[in-house]
Amino acid sequence: MDAITMYMNAALDSARTVKGFTAPNPAVGAVIVRDGVIIATGSTSPAGGDHAEIHAIRAAGENCRGAELYVTLEPCSHWGKTPPCSEAVIAAGFSKVIIAMEDPNPLVSGRGTSQIRAAGIEVITGICETEAHQLNEDFFYYITHKKPWVTVKLAMTLDGRVADSKGSSQWITGPESRRFVHELRAKHTAIGVGRGTLETDNPQLTVRGVEGKNPIRIAFVSDATAGKATWFRDHARDERTIMVISDTSNQRIETASDGVELWFTGSASHLESLDRFLTMAGEQEIDSLFVEGGSGLVSTFLELRAVNRFYLFYAPKLLGGGTDGLVLAEPHPMNQPIALDNPQWHQFGNDMMITGVASWL
Amino acid sequence: MDAITMYMNAALDSARTVKGFTAPNPAVGAVIVRDGVIIATGSTSPAGGDHAEIHAIRAAGENCRGAELYVTLEPCSHWGKTPPCSEAVIAAGFSKVIIAMEDPNPLVSGRGTSQIRAAGIEVITGICETEAHQLNEDFFYYITHKKPWVTVKLAMTLDGRVADSKGSSQWITGPESRRFVHELRAKHTAIGVGRGTLETDNPQLTVRGVEGKNPIRIAFVSDATAGKATWFRDHARDERTIMVISDTSNQRIETASDGVELWFTGSASHLESLDRFLTMAGEQEIDSLFVEGGSGLVSTFLELRAVNRFYLFYAPKLLGGGTDGLVLAEPHPMNQPIALDNPQWHQFGNDMMITGVASWL
Repeated sequence: MDAITMYMNAALDSARTVKGFTAPNPAVGAVIVRDGVIIATGSTSPAGGDHAEIHAIRAAGENCRGAELYVTLEPCSHWGKTPPCSEAVIAAGFSKVIIAMEDPNPLVSGRGTSQIRAAGIEVITGICETEAHQLNEDFFYYITHKKPWVTVKLAMTLDGRVADSKGSSQWITGPESRRFVHELRAKHTAIGVGRGTLETDNPQLTVRGVEGKNPIRIAFVSDATAGKATWFRDHARDERTIMVISDTSNQRIETASDGVELWFTGSASHLESLDRFLTMAGEQEIDSLFVEGGSGLVSTFLELRAVNRFYLFYAPKLLGGGTDGLVLAEPHPMNQPIALDNPQWHQFGNDMMITGVASWL
Repeated sequence: MDAITMYMNAALDSARTVKGFTAPNPAVGAVIVRDGVIIATGSTSPAGGDHAEIHAIRAAGENCRGAELYVTLEPCSHWGKTPPCSEAVIAAGFSKVIIAMEDPNPLVSGRGTSQIRAAGIEVITGICETEAHQLNEDFFYYITHKKPWVTVKLAMTLDGRVADSKGSSQWITGPESRRFVHELRAKHTAIGVGRGTLETDNPQLTVRGVEGKNPIRIAFVSDATAGKATWFRDHARDERTIMVISDTSNQRIETASDGVELWFTGSASHLESLDRFLTMAGEQEIDSLFVEGGSGLVSTFLELRAVNRFYLFYAPKLLGGGTDGLVLAEPHPMNQPIALDNPQWHQFGNDMMITGVASWL
């Protein structure tokens, strides 16, 4: 790995530490390098706080002069809740600025870079661009579509089963995989389950065993009485808790006596209801949703083609029968599958996980 | 990696180059190291030829004196088709002998090591033992059970399908995976398919695109007229070609007019027939069998608990329906699955492959 990639990776690592905490801002990291040594790092503060570059510049102080700045996203050029970072970068006196990717936000997109270049500072862009994009793919999707980025997780046996023939699914994967699922929960704004999962598994949908904030909890049901006596409803005042209700009544948002937000989508059709939910969620600034099942909810998201990324876990075991992980009303032919683009495989203990961006061939 | 592991890995690599060519001997590798430099390597010759140590000793000549010998299997101590290697090792004058694993062959098991130690040479054992065992697991199984080591390969989508809802299965995996399947074919003595695969896919069952000899071809059918006009029957004189026939006639072996060996197992029960086949194959010195499908044949092998190792390939795509890769008459419960012990994952292009030893929990 060359030095420039190494320093940008350090900036990416810095960004990853705050992923999930920065909404409605993207998670960004910055490092300042002087004479081949990282002298300061920074990452985005929670909403409305300082951006990554500002933290790093403040930490390095006068040592910025003549140093190199590595930042995972183009410095902003506009007044938001904070002043434009491009001005601070110019004032700091860097000899060189290395940027992983241009900001797709139409308020910035290239302007930050232009301003820095116009001040006579050398700017290099496109270093670790893929990684930088993936880190904030949910954010970039949300600001352009105004709908949440949807991630689907499934844990399966090697023959694609999510439960045995008696319905038992605990535990398919090992502790390392389950720990990573909690990391994924922490990186999403909301987590969603179907009615079957809500009532059968009675899940807490919290982040446990890793650092991170609990996501907003969402259950997809067909009437407001679902989930009685579940942990979900009983703890509705601990975290924002939403039941999305597909019925024929008018679209509206109410609050139940136990504190659950009731989102009536105004449609009893599963597909149309989910589509309307995505718009409502966008309006409520829910920029990412982690769908943990069950199979029916996942299938509806897939039929709507509303899945952006998959996380599929495989445990090294076979059943030879049971519940298939994925059953669509209209299965795809072999030459037109749902493909996982840019697939990445990671091992967790004895399990394997594949992640990739959904694309319909 | 320490030096001793590094040299043993070199010996293992040398052994791997002859895997599939050494029956009825195991594939063994040897390297000779002097002053930290590999001065000679050797690997087992085809049946009846010299063993790995002998090749390396001959290559190093007088330079063996005071050098170190690394060998992936305990040197033999008995007269087979060649003289005992232990005597040659002692005569060569090594200062140290490093052995990956003891020979499980009851004719050797520890005697080679004892003889070398008794001659005053330092012997270290158990270096890279797991890798050395896996390299010849089929051989070790065969010499102790007198039945072939059975490997099952399946290529699936991420939702565990081997074909779409119209039966199309070409191609699930990419060229890198398919190339590795040919390497696997070359490492097995025989390759087996069921009648459906034989007649629908009309496979050649040859080794293509990689170096290696074609395995013995075996089809499992229920009568001697199966597979008419297939490549399998039409090319029965190119390689040894066997049809295993489960019917109620007496157990016997005949040769059909087209050159196909007809193995009548003497049982019309799929399970009993397969069990008898394994004994017959052992008697015919078929020490390993690579089962490439279809699903029915794989299931019968599994029901008989006659599968030793799995190679399961996953392509990064989903169908949501189609033919399940594994369907057993009696599916396993989640807490008693068919487990893959010591699972290893390897990436081939965008595909992932898991291999592991079958164990029934």
